[in-house]
Amino acid sequence: MDVTATLARYVVSAPADSVPENVRREAVRSFLNWMGCAVGGSRHETVDIALAAISPFAGKPQAAVLGRGERLDIMHAALLNGISSHVFDFDDTHLRTIIHPAGPIASAILSMAQLKPVSGRDFLHAFILGVEVECRIGNAVYPAHYDIGWHITGTAGVFGAAAAAGKLLGLNEQQMIWALGIAGTQSSGFREMFGTMCKSFHPGRAAQNGLLAAHLAERGFTSSNRVLEAPRGFAHVMSTERNFDEITKGLGDSFEIALNTYKPFACGIVIHPIIDGCVQLRNEFGLKADEIERIDLEVDPLVLELTGKKTPQVGLEGKFSVYHSAAVAIIDGKAGEEEYSDSRVRDPQVVTLRDKVHAVASNTIAEDECHVTVTLSDGRVLKKHVEHAIGSLARPMSNADLDAKFSGLADPVLGAGAAARLRDLCWNIEKLEDVAVLATAAVPAA
Amino acid sequence: MDVTATLARYVVSAPADSVPENVRREAVRSFLNWMGCAVGGSRHETVDIALAAISPFAGKPQAAVLGRGERLDIMHAALLNGISSHVFDFDDTHLRTIIHPAGPIASAILSMAQLKPVSGRDFLHAFILGVEVECRIGNAVYPAHYDIGWHITGTAGVFGAAAAAGKLLGLNEQQMIWALGIAGTQSSGFREMFGTMCKSFHPGRAAQNGLLAAHLAERGFTSSNRVLEAPRGFAHVMSTERNFDEITKGLGDSFEIALNTYKPFACGIVIHPIIDGCVQLRNEFGLKADEIERIDLEVDPLVLELTGKKTPQVGLEGKFSVYHSAAVAIIDGKAGEEEYSDSRVRDPQVVTLRDKVHAVASNTIAEDECHVTVTLSDGRVLKKHVEHAIGSLARPMSNADLDAKFSGLADPVLGAGAAARLRDLCWNIEKLEDVAVLATAAVPAA
Repeated sequence: MDVTATLARYVVSAPADSVPENVRREAVRSFLNWMGCAVGGSRHETVDIALAAISPFAGKPQAAVLGRGERLDIMHAALLNGISSHVFDFDDTHLRTIIHPAGPIASAILSMAQLKPVSGRDFLHAFILGVEVECRIGNAVYPAHYDIGWHITGTAGVFGAAAAAGKLLGLNEQQMIWALGIAGTQSSGFREMFGTMCKSFHPGRAAQNGLLAAHLAERGFTSSNRVLEAPRGFAHVMSTERNFDEITKGLGDSFEIALNTYKPFACGIVIHPIIDGCVQLRNEFGLKADEIERIDLEVDPLVLELTGKKTPQVGLEGKFSVYHSAAVAIIDGKAGEEEYSDSRVRDPQVVTLRDKVHAVASNTIAEDECHVTVTLSDGRVLKKHVEHAIGSLARPMSNADLDAKFSGLADPVLGAGAAARLRDLCWNIEKLEDVAVLATAAVPAA
Repeated sequence: MDVTATLARYVVSAPADSVPENVRREAVRSFLNWMGCAVGGSRHETVDIALAAISPFAGKPQAAVLGRGERLDIMHAALLNGISSHVFDFDDTHLRTIIHPAGPIASAILSMAQLKPVSGRDFLHAFILGVEVECRIGNAVYPAHYDIGWHITGTAGVFGAAAAAGKLLGLNEQQMIWALGIAGTQSSGFREMFGTMCKSFHPGRAAQNGLLAAHLAERGFTSSNRVLEAPRGFAHVMSTERNFDEITKGLGDSFEIALNTYKPFACGIVIHPIIDGCVQLRNEFGLKADEIERIDLEVDPLVLELTGKKTPQVGLEGKFSVYHSAAVAIIDGKAGEEEYSDSRVRDPQVVTLRDKVHAVASNTIAEDECHVTVTLSDGRVLKKHVEHAIGSLARPMSNADLDAKFSGLADPVLGAGAAARLRDLCWNIEKLEDVAVLATAAVPAA
């Protein structure tokens, strides 16, 4: 079995004009959503700290930290933009694997494209191929790999970043095999870090490490030729189960990015059906927090496993608390970034309602489904069954939804006019002669 | 159980004057051996390629690439020196875990010490503590962790690098916990990469990633407080077995660096008893390759698992071939770096003898033991039982052996005079006011 070589051969030889229109459209939507998240997240404390820590060691000012004025060498710019784009937990989701595909890939190659011009067409193709590598590797090991405790966006993302960067560098097949090998032997990131600054560090490092892998491979830095399939390679060392057909079958016939989804809420995706249900009940019945006696949730088991934090203390923890999320959905009618600030997580009214939320896991409920039951002080019992959460493949975000989300993220950072110009550039990325203009447009005027 | 916090508290609070003399002496020997390996390995193709690839992205010239003229930011200098010091597979070994302790730690903190002065006393103490963290974590998960396929020098080394760097930065307990967390979530490196350039990349990255972790933690970058012990932390995710007492018991009472050993031969340590036995037989009987009919080896099972490459094609693979090693031991009477060149691995005489070597694993043989049987064309059968290989704890390298090894490595790079001066500085490291002089002395005159 020649898994790594097969995948490398595909990435190296795939022609840009072979990608169907619907796939390219979804790639543009993914990129736009990523850009909004990266610009929106760029002022987060996590980014401030990372930037302060690495600045004394960074190289020449080759690429922009999106949403900010600083310029760094392309490796560190990839790290910072990867952090920014994930720090709100608002980026895209490949539902089958819970990979957030764009972060590691786009952060790596948009940095690269500021060093040497890349057309929008080539950029989008490398992006699509990077996501393909990342998600196929994820498909091959999910859920066993994730269940062990690996943050799959980091562990699979580094392969995707290497593949996309390697495509733009024009690596040959042997070099691409090495790029995947050097990437894979850096694959890392624990789910234990969820709720801390390290969570967004993972896609940032995946971008940076994949980018380095491609550049080392270009110069002839060798690795095993079988990083994916060898008995001591990625799929055996980092997973208890694996299916290599997921990596090698139908390459070029299907595209994982076509299955990408975008979050309407700024938190762990498994909470989305609950927020959706709570917001619907709130709006239908004009619910007020102080008239609620208790809230019962029936959810997929993964919800409690991933987002079972009962008493979050900071905003980042709130994103992994189904209890906090249900409370703010009722009180605020939404779950944007403001609902996950440190102060909102500690707000007495929110805490009081949060403590009234009870959740039980059910094996008969799908990941994008839930039952919400609100019991009022006056004895009334209100129920909502969400079959598919908004933002799921069954109820996708429209282009208009994505525009509104983009504005919500980018307007406060760039100003509405500049944000709109950046948004239009993203929609038209395939027509750009040099995608570096995107990075320029994503930095606020001095 | 408070494993990470207990370890962090120890590192933060341990006073330098509490380390016994014999431990400090062994630390000096470890450092000297590391320095020789780093200088000696600095001209290897692996280092050339890595340097060429990262140079366009490196930061200010803060620290030296040992054995060379280039200067890089401290993070990249740590990477390069970590690669150099391991690329010959000639560095130190903590036999219980097969960790090569010095590489990740010394590479990280000698870079740091070129940015801000550090006394030899403080440097050596941070080095000892880093090795302690690295090897205790190794002890807690070895052999299960290693058997899965993890290159433990990389996976455990990153913690040690973070701890040593954090000690020099003066981190408080919470910051040290974060440093270990940020380090752990980057823990990576597959044994699958043995025999390729990625093997020495692992300690290099461990040094660089641990150094970054400490600097991020210093600024307040958060991680889980329980990276080692949490159900989704290092010891559960990356090992099937674990014993946390190995990390927390007797801190300050014993020192793992006191158990460090140094290689007389430039290859995987499990081959050392075989080389020792072959060299002894050669010298005792004046053996010539063309009079040998076959060579039979009875070895620990790990020898075949780690070094079973029957037909190595390049020098790096030769270091993981017990067959090649036995052949050159007979022909050359030694196994230095020259015996593991690409040309030596392809030499027809070596290949002919290599093909006559047969190895069988035995469960009754210790890791530093072997039986060598040489059958000659004239019917004679010669046997040698090596109970403990030279370089093992039972037959340690003397200071004079280490001096000779250092000269063999450093003289060709620095010249004999400069190498001797560097050697003397290393022996006297505890008296240095500023260890940056070591880096200066380790660079050849322009």
